[in-house]
Amino acid sequence: MPELRKDPITGRWVIISTERQKRPNDFRFERPTIVGREHCPFCPGREDMTPPEVLAYRPNGGGPNGPGWDVRVVPNKFPALKVEGTLDREGEGMFDRMNGIGAHEVIIESPDHDQSFASMRETDIERVLSAFRERILDLKQDRRLRYVLVFKNHGGPAGATLEHGHSQLIALPVVPDFVREELEGAHRHFAAKERCVFCDIIRQELAAGPRVVQENADIVALAPYAPRFAFETWLLPRRHGSRFEEAPQHEYESLARMLKTVLTRIDRALEKPPYNLLVHSAPFGDNGSDEYHWHVEIMPKLTRTAGFEWGTGFYINPTSPEEAADVLRSVKL
Amino acid sequence: MPELRKDPITGRWVIISTERQKRPNDFRFERPTIVGREHCPFCPGREDMTPPEVLAYRPNGGGPNGPGWDVRVVPNKFPALKVEGTLDREGEGMFDRMNGIGAHEVIIESPDHDQSFASMRETDIERVLSAFRERILDLKQDRRLRYVLVFKNHGGPAGATLEHGHSQLIALPVVPDFVREELEGAHRHFAAKERCVFCDIIRQELAAGPRVVQENADIVALAPYAPRFAFETWLLPRRHGSRFEEAPQHEYESLARMLKTVLTRIDRALEKPPYNLLVHSAPFGDNGSDEYHWHVEIMPKLTRTAGFEWGTGFYINPTSPEEAADVLRSVKL
Repeated sequence: MPELRKDPITGRWVIISTERQKRPNDFRFERPTIVGREHCPFCPGREDMTPPEVLAYRPNGGGPNGPGWDVRVVPNKFPALKVEGTLDREGEGMFDRMNGIGAHEVIIESPDHDQSFASMRETDIERVLSAFRERILDLKQDRRLRYVLVFKNHGGPAGATLEHGHSQLIALPVVPDFVREELEGAHRHFAAKERCVFCDIIRQELAAGPRVVQENADIVALAPYAPRFAFETWLLPRRHGSRFEEAPQHEYESLARMLKTVLTRIDRALEKPPYNLLVHSAPFGDNGSDEYHWHVEIMPKLTRTAGFEWGTGFYINPTSPEEAADVLRSVKL
Repeated sequence: MPELRKDPITGRWVIISTERQKRPNDFRFERPTIVGREHCPFCPGREDMTPPEVLAYRPNGGGPNGPGWDVRVVPNKFPALKVEGTLDREGEGMFDRMNGIGAHEVIIESPDHDQSFASMRETDIERVLSAFRERILDLKQDRRLRYVLVFKNHGGPAGATLEHGHSQLIALPVVPDFVREELEGAHRHFAAKERCVFCDIIRQELAAGPRVVQENADIVALAPYAPRFAFETWLLPRRHGSRFEEAPQHEYESLARMLKTVLTRIDRALEKPPYNLLVHSAPFGDNGSDEYHWHVEIMPKLTRTAGFEWGTGFYINPTSPEEAADVLRSVKL
């Protein structure tokens, strides 16, 4: 059973993941190759290589766990957290732990092994966003869970172990630190000004201009003022909304379009770099809907995180966001 | 001029490092090689390849910036922060920035290109610790500075770009987030119990046993209860002390011995993995000396940090600390 443990000094949670320990290659320090086409468990016809699906879109019919799908969602074969069991919070002297209750799923984005958000059609990306939304709404019904993080590791150096385009989600029984920090910051801003801090940033950035990468009807793409990583880019809905899964349909359409263009800009400017992508949204049951603003963060992995970052939580970024935005804006599409 | 920028939502600081941007290879995603012996700027006789030294130990005499040294400290050639200038704190609408005032130095640990803490003699490691101490005491006199982080990137995947054994220090004009979190946690514990949280952990762990890796006269090596990384190991002085640079001489001797043994255990158990090492100590001018407890953290880099960690601040660790401590204890020395 995976375990959640809390550091008694900082309050930081970690997952001691017993399942993943069995994972092959876990302690090879450099993994030069990731699983390619030949052994790909995500390609159509290999549905028995994954655990049974929890969701799939089969517009032309066909039974579960067979081919014919456009998007397929399956539990992770090496889950960091598991659905079965009870939380069983307990102490061990001054330490706190609970069972690693949660969910860990993989969203296979396309039957085509080689597709990525940069190459997919906008309607196909929209279908992936719709799968994110459906899974979040379903997991939300489990009262033990407090948060779902949707994320994507693209390319080996960003942590991908399989080549076939996929995203993941992890549902957690606690609100994670980084989200809590954003919620607290948003709360402080709202308490002082009665305005959403993200809405204020969007207003100021659109008026100023140098950090805007692109905008469309519903979504603004920005290089944030204090980016942790070179070419970090955030996608924010113009309209205030605290939860990704409650966005109106036209925002998913606009987001799909923006993901395709921004990732194409990043691919061309930086020669298809590895990247992480994640969705930040308000926690389940949270009623701070005036304060928090859902958004997508894209973090190209161009430099290594090292001792300084692990020791301080500070990041050294060799590219200013003004320059990054300028480079991305200048890409010919 | 490097710039410090504060994220308006979380309050997290980043360094926009204009100097490092010129660094060769910054945007190659995989750096398969690091600078080896042939072009090593840290080997004796190549002193002109580094900026002029700020400290060196030459027991047999010899002039500055020539051979004959045992330990040599030089400014980083591509500093993340610079000593010259004023802080110039200023706002830009809702954003906050200041000049990147600070220091970034390299401690060359031995004239021998191939040495590491695992292979060096204990007295040689002690001399390196003494150089850490002297540099911290010197930088402390600069009233603009609030914190010095001493750290080490060992091996390419841990962020090292040069093979020759070296540590680094970065002096900062603000207290970094991760240290502030530890200080706040230690303060909460002290406020409730009038005891240092680190002292309480040492007591509980020595009594319990399963997470103790090794102990000597002054230093205890532990696998922490909630480790972020597999085989993460902390070295703590038994005697309460908040600042590394104020430790009595016998603690440096014991720490040197412990560093050598613990890193030898890690090298043998995990086939010489890359790792980060860092020293956490109370900030300059802080008077919470009853509350905080200096220590060393060693983090082997066995797995990749990916989207989940960047999105949550949560870590997934595939090895329990009980198991890691058991493996490290069982290594034949």
